[in-house]
Amino acid sequence: MKFNIQSTISYAVSAPTTFIFNIHAIRSNSQKILTESLVLDPPLAVEEFSYNGGAGRFVRLKSEGNANFTINYSATVETNYAIIDQRQEFQTVPVAELDGDIIPFLFPSRYCQSDKLQKLAYTEFGSIENVYSKVLAITDWIYNNVEYRSGSTDSQTAALDTITDRVGVCRDFAHLGISLCRALSIPARYLTCYAYTLQPPDFHACFEAYIGGNWIVFDATRLVPLNSLVKIANGRDAADAAVASIFGNAMSQNIQVSCEVAQDDFTPFWYNDNLMNGLSLQ
Amino acid sequence: MKFNIQSTISYAVSAPTTFIFNIHAIRSNSQKILTESLVLDPPLAVEEFSYNGGAGRFVRLKSEGNANFTINYSATVETNYAIIDQRQEFQTVPVAELDGDIIPFLFPSRYCQSDKLQKLAYTEFGSIENVYSKVLAITDWIYNNVEYRSGSTDSQTAALDTITDRVGVCRDFAHLGISLCRALSIPARYLTCYAYTLQPPDFHACFEAYIGGNWIVFDATRLVPLNSLVKIANGRDAADAAVASIFGNAMSQNIQVSCEVAQDDFTPFWYNDNLMNGLSLQ
Amino acid sequence: MKFNIQSTISYAVSAPTTFIFNIHAIRSNSQKILTESLVLDPPLAVEEFSYNGGAGRFVRLKSEGNANFTINYSATVETNYAIIDQRQEFQTVPVAELDGDIIPFLFPSRYCQSDKLQKLAYTEFGSIENVYSKVLAITDWIYNNVEYRSGSTDSQTAALDTITDRVGVCRDFAHLGISLCRALSIPARYLTCYAYTLQPPDFHACFEAYIGGNWIVFDATRLVPLNSLVKIANGRDAADAAVASIFGNAMSQNIQVSCEVAQDDFTPFWYNDNLMNGLSLQ
Amino acid sequence: MKFNIQSTISYAVSAPTTFIFNIHAIRSNSQKILTESLVLDPPLAVEEFSYNGGAGRFVRLKSEGNANFTINYSATVETNYAIIDQRQEFQTVPVAELDGDIIPFLFPSRYCQSDKLQKLAYTEFGSIENVYSKVLAITDWIYNNVEYRSGSTDSQTAALDTITDRVGVCRDFAHLGISLCRALSIPARYLTCYAYTLQPPDFHACFEAYIGGNWIVFDATRLVPLNSLVKIANGRDAADAAVASIFGNAMSQNIQVSCEVAQDDFTPFWYNDNLMNGLSLQ
Repeated sequence: MKFNIQSTISYAVSAPTTFIFNIHAIRSNSQKILTESLVLDPPLAVEEFSYNGGAGRFVRLKSEGNANFTINYSATVETNYAIIDQRQEFQTVPVAELDGDIIPFLFPSRYCQSDKLQKLAYTEFGSIENVYSKVLAITDWIYNNVEYRSGSTDSQTAALDTITDRVGVCRDFAHLGISLCRALSIPARYLTCYAYTLQPPDFHACFEAYIGGNWIVFDATRLVPLNSLVKIANGRDAADAAVASIFGNAMSQNIQVSCEVAQDDFTPFWYNDNLMNGLSLQ
Repeated sequence: MKFNIQSTISYAVSAPTTFIFNIHAIRSNSQKILTESLVLDPPLAVEEFSYNGGAGRFVRLKSEGNANFTINYSATVETNYAIIDQRQEFQTVPVAELDGDIIPFLFPSRYCQSDKLQKLAYTEFGSIENVYSKVLAITDWIYNNVEYRSGSTDSQTAALDTITDRVGVCRDFAHLGISLCRALSIPARYLTCYAYTLQPPDFHACFEAYIGGNWIVFDATRLVPLNSLVKIANGRDAADAAVASIFGNAMSQNIQVSCEVAQDDFTPFWYNDNLMNGLSLQ
Repeated sequence: MKFNIQSTISYAVSAPTTFIFNIHAIRSNSQKILTESLVLDPPLAVEEFSYNGGAGRFVRLKSEGNANFTINYSATVETNYAIIDQRQEFQTVPVAELDGDIIPFLFPSRYCQSDKLQKLAYTEFGSIENVYSKVLAITDWIYNNVEYRSGSTDSQTAALDTITDRVGVCRDFAHLGISLCRALSIPARYLTCYAYTLQPPDFHACFEAYIGGNWIVFDATRLVPLNSLVKIANGRDAADAAVASIFGNAMSQNIQVSCEVAQDDFTPFWYNDNLMNGLSLQ
Repeated sequence: MKFNIQSTISYAVSAPTTFIFNIHAIRSNSQKILTESLVLDPPLAVEEFSYNGGAGRFVRLKSEGNANFTINYSATVETNYAIIDQRQEFQTVPVAELDGDIIPFLFPSRYCQSDKLQKLAYTEFGSIENVYSKVLAITDWIYNNVEYRSGSTDSQTAALDTITDRVGVCRDFAHLGISLCRALSIPARYLTCYAYTLQPPDFHACFEAYIGGNWIVFDATRLVPLNSLVKIANGRDAADAAVASIFGNAMSQNIQVSCEVAQDDFTPFWYNDNLMNGLSLQ
């Protein structure tokens, strides 16, 4: 699939401020960047970096303040996701065989307190044998028990809040999904992305579970087809993949995000319990 | 300094169980392993691994269960810490100049909810200019306001609990120190270690703050001199550096830890506000 | 029913300490005290009191400390519970018609954060029309989703913890039941009691929901028949009905509780969805 | 002092809804209502009630919905507060001598988790001998460590949040003050009121501590003089004294509150460490 993605964010900066943005599409085996451009107004020196254990292209810049500034990113990206038959995944990859770099995605994190949810996870989902079906059951449970409501939560909301409050946004749905997977010893990680057909247009978040050696995408919000995603970053949770981290004093003025298909045909891919096909975008 | 360290842990294993142990001394510029041995009884295949973004030598093994088993690790380690004058550290390394791999240590984590403690941190410590003095003030505040009591907390206790409950163990003291540093945009990480003169002998935990390009060691418990440490691992918090992670069903039967100096002389190094010397063990 | 109840608690008192005990059986329309005795060793002046809005006979005494002391309460109590047909209770008593003294049992309290559980309660139980069936469904849900494990929680554990941790004791089962009722605008209150056939013998806690003008007893633990209870106190939650409140410095040494039937016959009363009979002990 | 108070609240009611309002000035030894009027538009049957253990005049009414409605309360109230010399209050009234009805104000409540703050309270304030000075120190600590910011918290915010977040409104300042008093075995209760000179005009909340047999008023916000208050209700915390409790479906449209002196002279009363005078409005 080919997508044209774009995001524009503007700030009023009232003091010297360092920004870390996480809005670039990543490069991976299944995601190729055909063209991209980054425009800053006013122009500022920008540095791209990544860090160990995270998959994301962070850009960092510093504004001296007392000015507005706008960052605009646009790209044409080709995604080649894999569809993987999940019927045979009758058990989790044993921890004894997990690659070392996968292990941290079993650990609890700031917004995914999986260590507190083990009994709940086992009671609700422990008896399901097929791993894909198990994670799908988690995703369905979240969809059926948590209300999606814009603006209902904030940057401090974590999975434990969502379990009790039963309301949230895509970020919260993903955190709860990740937490329940880790509670069952299924590695899971956070995913931020652009998403075609998302209404209203915005950045989106969902999660990936590690099943049979592949990272399979799940979205408990059911807001978009899974093959509409253009990946920005993976991380343990939102703490690793914030769209913007601000060190100083700046107020966001405006955010515009768009994601369109760059070709005529688009056949949406949705889950299907009967087909048992998982989508991977590694 | 030369130290002889040893740890022995035994389990009753009632089902097939995978263990991940984090008890080896790490190799680094300032820590050299002269000899080491790992003995398992009964003998089991063991694999050593590490993961991106973590500094630790994890060993993984699998017991088929219905048996006891004991892991014994011993080593002679030479540490060459640096003493660094902190008088000139009048500001934090700007985020704009931090190496990418340092950035994650600014993020909140499972047991260090720094995002919730920013106002508290600024109110209490924001006015202190010298960064080393600032972290030392954090360390003193914890020592003076939190009671050290063995067994008072558990593996789910996080910094927010310690701020209200005001009681904990070395792990909790470290988590609170890390949280308050990150709340002030000072990178901070968790440290597990063996510690000479620790009474009763056990594994120990403290934290490191990133000041002037060096990771400086701080210990809010004041239980041991800072140059008595032999480092096992660094991580974002205890979620990254658990002594043992157990996937299956095993009960710990016995833990023995020892750390002795392998030479005659040992001059303890303690903080000293006047000297303003920081100890680094990178 | 006639019951012989008894409780003996002994303390080592190391400083002048005031105790408030809440171990007496209450007098009510449905509970008559035939005989009772309170023995203190050494003898201390004791004062009985109650407070507005609470149903309990508190006794207060002061030990000068540096001594052991033992309180022993025993009584023969006759209970005359009512069995009330619940088939017609098709809606909650409207708040507009509730007696003023019932209203506070709609409010959230220390251990019953009903304000945080409204969506959960409506999602799980909102569609059930008959009020008694609704509270029975809450009780069953707790029984099926929360593990009863002695010593798994402490005096600070509240309903929000139980919702996530899914483990607790009778106190926690009651707090969660109360919270879910209040979240659905059903008045609910905490109940402490002696309980015949409880194993191991101890004080017990369950809850009452206000249905059709009567306080109906529910016990999500299913540990004892409902007609085995001898009521000690009602309150908003355990904060109002602690067995012992200690102001000073005393260590509990030993607790013995017993509750036996004082007659030959005892026909246990359990819930029965078909019969739809509720038990009231007002 | 004579005050003219008034409050007007209007709602859009979309379904049959029962309202419980808590906006009337209470009658007490120190507060006399000279005139008052309650106007409902459209007119609805209204019932006044109170409940055991609470001091407040609640009014209850039911709207059939699909209509707007407005409640307007106005009154002229004379307050006769007492000024009590606190220099001799060298210890808390012993629990052994407290009237039974005072005891519940020692217990933790929904928004005042005093059981979790005992060590913090003792560390910070335990050494202060004079009880009034102790509560004044608590009040000053809150003023100095918690930022007052309108809209920063919501109806679920409790003292434990305020201890970590260090931001809140009058309600949160009161809850934290109450919690710290109870943690030190000083009975404390919540107070809602009208307040002369409060800017912007609104309902106000502060707290009372039981010192030397009197309920002394404290206000950690320092927003208004203590003799500017007209009391609406007391309770364990905001759960007992919400301005409006809504059972149904109604949206608040507008709230207007005013409190003016009905006489020429008004001499503001503020705390004064030197004078050690406490104000009581029982």
